[in-house]
Amino acid sequence: MNKPTRIDCLQYCNWSRARFEEMRAGGLDAVHVTICYHENFRETVANITHWNDWFAHHRDLIFHGRCADDVRAAQESGRTAIFFGFQNCAPIEDDIRLVEICHSLGACFMQLTYNNQSLLAGGCYEPHDSGITRMGRQVISEMNRLGMVIDMSHSGERSTLEAIELSSRPIAVTHANPSFWRLAARSKSDTILLELAKSGGMLGLSLYPHHLKDGSQCTLKSFCEMVARTAEIMGADNIGIGSDLCRGQPDLVVAWMRTGRWSKDMDVSGGVFPPQPPWFESAADFGNLDDGLRQVGFNQQEVDNVLGENWQRFFVRSFVAANNV
Amino acid sequence: MNKPTRIDCLQYCNWSRARFEEMRAGGLDAVHVTICYHENFRETVANITHWNDWFAHHRDLIFHGRCADDVRAAQESGRTAIFFGFQNCAPIEDDIRLVEICHSLGACFMQLTYNNQSLLAGGCYEPHDSGITRMGRQVISEMNRLGMVIDMSHSGERSTLEAIELSSRPIAVTHANPSFWRLAARSKSDTILLELAKSGGMLGLSLYPHHLKDGSQCTLKSFCEMVARTAEIMGADNIGIGSDLCRGQPDLVVAWMRTGRWSKDMDVSGGVFPPQPPWFESAADFGNLDDGLRQVGFNQQEVDNVLGENWQRFFVRSFVAANNV
Repeated sequence: MNKPTRIDCLQYCNWSRARFEEMRAGGLDAVHVTICYHENFRETVANITHWNDWFAHHRDLIFHGRCADDVRAAQESGRTAIFFGFQNCAPIEDDIRLVEICHSLGACFMQLTYNNQSLLAGGCYEPHDSGITRMGRQVISEMNRLGMVIDMSHSGERSTLEAIELSSRPIAVTHANPSFWRLAARSKSDTILLELAKSGGMLGLSLYPHHLKDGSQCTLKSFCEMVARTAEIMGADNIGIGSDLCRGQPDLVVAWMRTGRWSKDMDVSGGVFPPQPPWFESAADFGNLDDGLRQVGFNQQEVDNVLGENWQRFFVRSFVAANNV
Repeated sequence: MNKPTRIDCLQYCNWSRARFEEMRAGGLDAVHVTICYHENFRETVANITHWNDWFAHHRDLIFHGRCADDVRAAQESGRTAIFFGFQNCAPIEDDIRLVEICHSLGACFMQLTYNNQSLLAGGCYEPHDSGITRMGRQVISEMNRLGMVIDMSHSGERSTLEAIELSSRPIAVTHANPSFWRLAARSKSDTILLELAKSGGMLGLSLYPHHLKDGSQCTLKSFCEMVARTAEIMGADNIGIGSDLCRGQPDLVVAWMRTGRWSKDMDVSGGVFPPQPPWFESAADFGNLDDGLRQVGFNQQEVDNVLGENWQRFFVRSFVAANNV
C-alpha cells in the first residue's frame, strides 16, 4: 500500500449514510467514534446495537474495526474502519469486570472521566482534582491487560499526569488542544504534552470550535501553526488528529453531553453546538489539513504521520492484549 | 494431529479448578457450557464475567472458544476450549438486537425455549406447543446470519420440527435422548431424529439420570446400545454427546433451573439432582464411553465420530457468519 493512512481519532456526528460518505470523501481509513457519554451499561449496549445496524446497512462504506490490521483492511477495500470509544466510564458502572465485557463488544478507548469527577478520576471542570482513585488504578491495570486505550481528553491535570505514570502502556488524549494556543479547562498544559510524549502517548488535535483560538473564526493557518508549535514541543511522532466533529447533531445532544443526568441546569459551556470553521465543516474536508500543514512547513512524510500514520503505529501497539505485546 | 477430537456438547457443573482438571482427565478438547437459564441480559453478562475470571485463573487448563479452530488450538496446547451457550432466550429479553450483542460476547448456542413457552417458541412441558412465534422467526434468521446455533433440547415437538424447517442452517439438540429408549417430555421422537438428520443437524446424547433408562441405575451397556440404535435411525454422523453433567451443583440450582422466577412451586421434575451412574460421575469418565461404544459394535472411527469428530465438523460449518459459509 503506497497510499498514506488517514485517521480521525474522534468524531461524534449525527450518524447517517451522508456522514459515512463524507468519511470516504475525506479519505479516512479509520475513525474513532464516541459510543456514549453518560449512558450506563445497558444504554451503551443499545447504542452499540445502532452501530450494528449501520454496519449492516452501509457495509460498502464502513465496518467495525477492532485491531490495527482493520485499518489496512479498510484501505484495501476502500472503506472506513470504525473504532468504538467511550467518553466516560459510565458504561462500566461500579463493576471492573464490565471493562472486559465492553472490550469484547469492541470498545477500544475509554475516558476515565468526562469533565466531572467519576469513580475513576477527576474531571477537567472540577475545582479539585482527586487524581486517580482506588478503583481507577484497578481499571487502568485492567485496560492495560486487555489492550483498551486510556483516554484523558476530559480529565484534570493531576489525573492526567497520574494516568500517564500509572499506566504500563502509553495512553492517549484523543481530542484536545494545547493550553499555549487556547487557554481553557479542557486544554492541555505543556507539562502534559511533554509527559505524554515521553511515555509514548498520543495527542489528537481538535477542530471543535470551543477548542480553537478565535473559535469558529479560527483560520486553517492558525490551526496548522499550532500543530507545528505542538510538534516542536512534543515531537512530530506523538500527534495526530481527533477532530471532535459533531456534525449534524441537534442541540439537545450537547445538553446530554454536558449535563447528562447530573444537573438540571446547563453547565459553563452553554447549550448549543458552535458552527465549524468553513475549512472543516465535515469529514470530507480532511484533505484541507494536508494542504494547510504543508504550507506551514511540514514535509509530506510529516503530514502523513500527523494525519494518520502516527495513530496507526499507536493502534498497532495498543489494540493487543498485554500478553501479546 | 492424530489424536481424535473429544467434545462434550453440554455441561453445567459447579465450576472450579477441580472440574476443569476433570475435563483434562477425560481428554475433552471442547465443552459447551451453559451460561444461563432464566437470567436476563444483565444477569447473563454477570455470569460471563465469572467465566472471564476462570479463564484468567486457570489458563493452563481452559480458554474461551469462539470458532472451530479453537478446538484444534485446544488440542495443540493440551487445554479445553469452553464454548458458551444459553439454555433459554431470556438474555435477549424482547430485543432482537441483543442476539448480536450476545454473539459478540461469545454465545455460540441458544435454546429458543427452556421447558416453558418463551417469546420465541413452545417448551417441552407446555400442554400446547405454540410453534415458532413471530419473534422466533426473526431470531432464527438473526442466529443464522451470525453463526449462532439454534438448540431445541428443551423445546416442544412442533417447535422443534418448525425450527428445523425455518432455519436456513442445520440446528442442534445438544442434550436429549430418544423417546424410544426413555419416554419423557424432554425426549425426542423418531420424527425429530429423522428430520434433524435429514437437515444436517446434530443430536447430543445425554447422561443426565432423568434422561436415562433406569435413571441412575442405567448401565453403560444400555446407554451404548441406545447410541447404536439411534445411529441406525439417524446415521452415525449426526450424533454426539451432550452429557448435561451438573456435577457438584447444590439442589438450590435445580430450583432455579426448573422454576426461575416464574413459579413459587417446584415443577414436575422435583427439586433435587439425581446421582450420576457410577460409570459417568465426572468429565474424567468420558473415556468409559469409548470402551462402551466399541463393546456394542462401533469401530474406532465411528467411536471417534460420536465422541467428538461429528461435533467438530458441525462447529466448522456452524460458527461462521452466513456470508462466510
